[in-house]
Amino acid sequence: MTAYTQLSNTDKDQLLAELRQQYDAFATQQLDLDMTRGKPSTQQLDLANNLLRLDGFKDSTGADCRNYGGLDGLPEMKALFSDIIETPVENIIIGGNSSLTLMFDALARACLFGVSEDTSPWHGQEVKFLCPSPGYDRHFTVSQTLGLESIRVDMTDSGPDMDQVEALLAQDASIKGIWCVPKYSNPTGITYSDEVVERLASMKTAADDFRIMWDNAYAEHYFSGELDTVKDILATCAAAGNPDRAYVFASTSKMSFAGSGVSAFASSANNVSYAKKYIGAQSIGPDKVNQLRHLALFPDLASLRNHMSKHAALLGPKFARVEQILNEELAEIDIARWTKPRGGYFTSLDLNTGSAKRTIELSANLGVKLTAAGAPFPYGVDPQDNNIRIAPSFPELDDIETAMRVLCLSAKLATLEAAY
Amino acid sequence: MTAYTQLSNTDKDQLLAELRQQYDAFATQQLDLDMTRGKPSTQQLDLANNLLRLDGFKDSTGADCRNYGGLDGLPEMKALFSDIIETPVENIIIGGNSSLTLMFDALARACLFGVSEDTSPWHGQEVKFLCPSPGYDRHFTVSQTLGLESIRVDMTDSGPDMDQVEALLAQDASIKGIWCVPKYSNPTGITYSDEVVERLASMKTAADDFRIMWDNAYAEHYFSGELDTVKDILATCAAAGNPDRAYVFASTSKMSFAGSGVSAFASSANNVSYAKKYIGAQSIGPDKVNQLRHLALFPDLASLRNHMSKHAALLGPKFARVEQILNEELAEIDIARWTKPRGGYFTSLDLNTGSAKRTIELSANLGVKLTAAGAPFPYGVDPQDNNIRIAPSFPELDDIETAMRVLCLSAKLATLEAAY
Repeated sequence: MTAYTQLSNTDKDQLLAELRQQYDAFATQQLDLDMTRGKPSTQQLDLANNLLRLDGFKDSTGADCRNYGGLDGLPEMKALFSDIIETPVENIIIGGNSSLTLMFDALARACLFGVSEDTSPWHGQEVKFLCPSPGYDRHFTVSQTLGLESIRVDMTDSGPDMDQVEALLAQDASIKGIWCVPKYSNPTGITYSDEVVERLASMKTAADDFRIMWDNAYAEHYFSGELDTVKDILATCAAAGNPDRAYVFASTSKMSFAGSGVSAFASSANNVSYAKKYIGAQSIGPDKVNQLRHLALFPDLASLRNHMSKHAALLGPKFARVEQILNEELAEIDIARWTKPRGGYFTSLDLNTGSAKRTIELSANLGVKLTAAGAPFPYGVDPQDNNIRIAPSFPELDDIETAMRVLCLSAKLATLEAAY
Repeated sequence: MTAYTQLSNTDKDQLLAELRQQYDAFATQQLDLDMTRGKPSTQQLDLANNLLRLDGFKDSTGADCRNYGGLDGLPEMKALFSDIIETPVENIIIGGNSSLTLMFDALARACLFGVSEDTSPWHGQEVKFLCPSPGYDRHFTVSQTLGLESIRVDMTDSGPDMDQVEALLAQDASIKGIWCVPKYSNPTGITYSDEVVERLASMKTAADDFRIMWDNAYAEHYFSGELDTVKDILATCAAAGNPDRAYVFASTSKMSFAGSGVSAFASSANNVSYAKKYIGAQSIGPDKVNQLRHLALFPDLASLRNHMSKHAALLGPKFARVEQILNEELAEIDIARWTKPRGGYFTSLDLNTGSAKRTIELSANLGVKLTAAGAPFPYGVDPQDNNIRIAPSFPELDDIETAMRVLCLSAKLATLEAAY
């Protein structure tokens, strides 16, 4: 095969006709495939089916977990998250089934009350948030819903483009935060380098109430090679003299049951104590019985890691298949680049032309649903219209192959169309 | 026995000496009893132990409840709450384990975004909330934490004193809401009359963004006679031309496991649609597996009511014992009045003298913990210092008897002390 840029116009015409025939052939199959979201598969969920059975209802102190109480979670649950996110137990608050809720609530508190006793509420101020992109659409939706303006900064292979970040923060006191997925980032799969973590922790910010939203969503979620490590943001911030700068989030959502997991918030002693003041008015405490279920499944970090190795065994072949098809279909014709993730839930595909929207539309017309074009960018706008997020965790291997063939065919067609 | 008001000073001296001897006798027992909170007992929680075992994980449509999705809850769960709070399914949003969180979040949304597209955020405005008292301390804490000023209004045997409420609302546009526990109210146990519900629904409010916080916490929680009924607030508001006035809350907390139940929010179509806009940014959805567990326990309203009759059988004797001791100890000496609840979680005791704080202190010194004096009033201040909330649900009958003897003795001592 030849790179598309080398094709003559006649070659293009002929190729387009061939691809349209292939497209029509797919159309007869009446496909109905969905690769829109990073959902665990049935097989992954099955690994945690012991959550459906719990013997007993007391924690290690003998307390009845069925009753009210326990604002910040069971000590054993805090200990487990302490191991996952390498943070002292006393800096952790356990939440409900959704770390996204912990993030929304942390920013809602900042809007209503400020981030500390001696800072002003963000509500009523002009407040901006840095959104390294491509990133996680739900993050951007949280801050935008709360009225915070999204400012796009680029992602690199080692984290957000820190030159851009530092330049913006040095001059603009209305920028109050940044969204980060430090390990196996959504959707590019990269892990932040030590240098990026250090710069985030130590950079000068014009705002004195700047916060890093550190969503360690994929802390244990590798599927290739060894588990990546990422430098401890809370310790690095403390060492840099900015102890209250980072809010850390994690959850078991993609370890146990996606909709019925346990979430955690971690931060400095100051931030945790400040947050508890409001969480204590908002709730009598999270679901402790569900924490017990999780502790029976994951009594310690070793058992959790053993469990995650089974997830890896299920996810690895799916991502390998995605990469295989991308290689077979697109490598030689040179119309796109893509990531080779070793963890997380996504492969990120960048077309050489601004054809993402058209590609996704062509795929949808064949019954293959992909994440909406632009979703990984603030306000859903991909400035180059070339990024496509591929989420292969849920479908079976055969369906992934079919969906990927359709996606690649659609990308070829869209690229050729764009070249006219 | 003689009414204390009829005692001569010599009688008082002698009585005080006798009571102090009794008090000292209790002191040697080194009691450790807790009647501070309305917690279900171990036996009540045991009734729901089937929640610890779930067969399967699919809802009636075949959807896998372990995975992400389902922002507003399972249809069957909405149907159950629809029966409990007599509201159409489409007006219900299912939440997590805490209806208090739904209340906090509803008011936090009002503060950040207003109660509708065309009203202003409460944050930054002077906003007041009516707090019928004695009432539920955690309600008042929610609105106060959000910066809303508490205005105390009196409770009557049929609900808030509506003359006071209407007079305040007619003139003060900064009053934006009222807290209500319409059935078996916390702590007085009364149920709102139809007239009160109608006046709440139809009264003129200077504020056009006024909201009734209708916490139907004890919808099914009788223990004596027949279950009370309360007029449907949403329908009554709609009929009165104020369809968006009420936010309704309910939960299974005191039906199943107190800390691991399912909560619900219900309101007009407008309000539900407005709330979903924000809830959709805050969460991917509540814990559906826990909803399935509850549906296995309570497949319909009849099974739930059968379950609640077992709660009634456990709670009834406890409240009867409270009333018995109050009668034995206090009726003839005429130093207090108390409620005779037929449902809910509390008996409310009003001393004739302003001696609640001292009574609670005297009890605490004997090892009997009671709800803090003033807790059922805004800012924890009982203007007459005479109300004591009795929460007999958790302790065993013998312990209730002991705690009540201590409480009554303490009340007698405090009353006599006050009379000097």
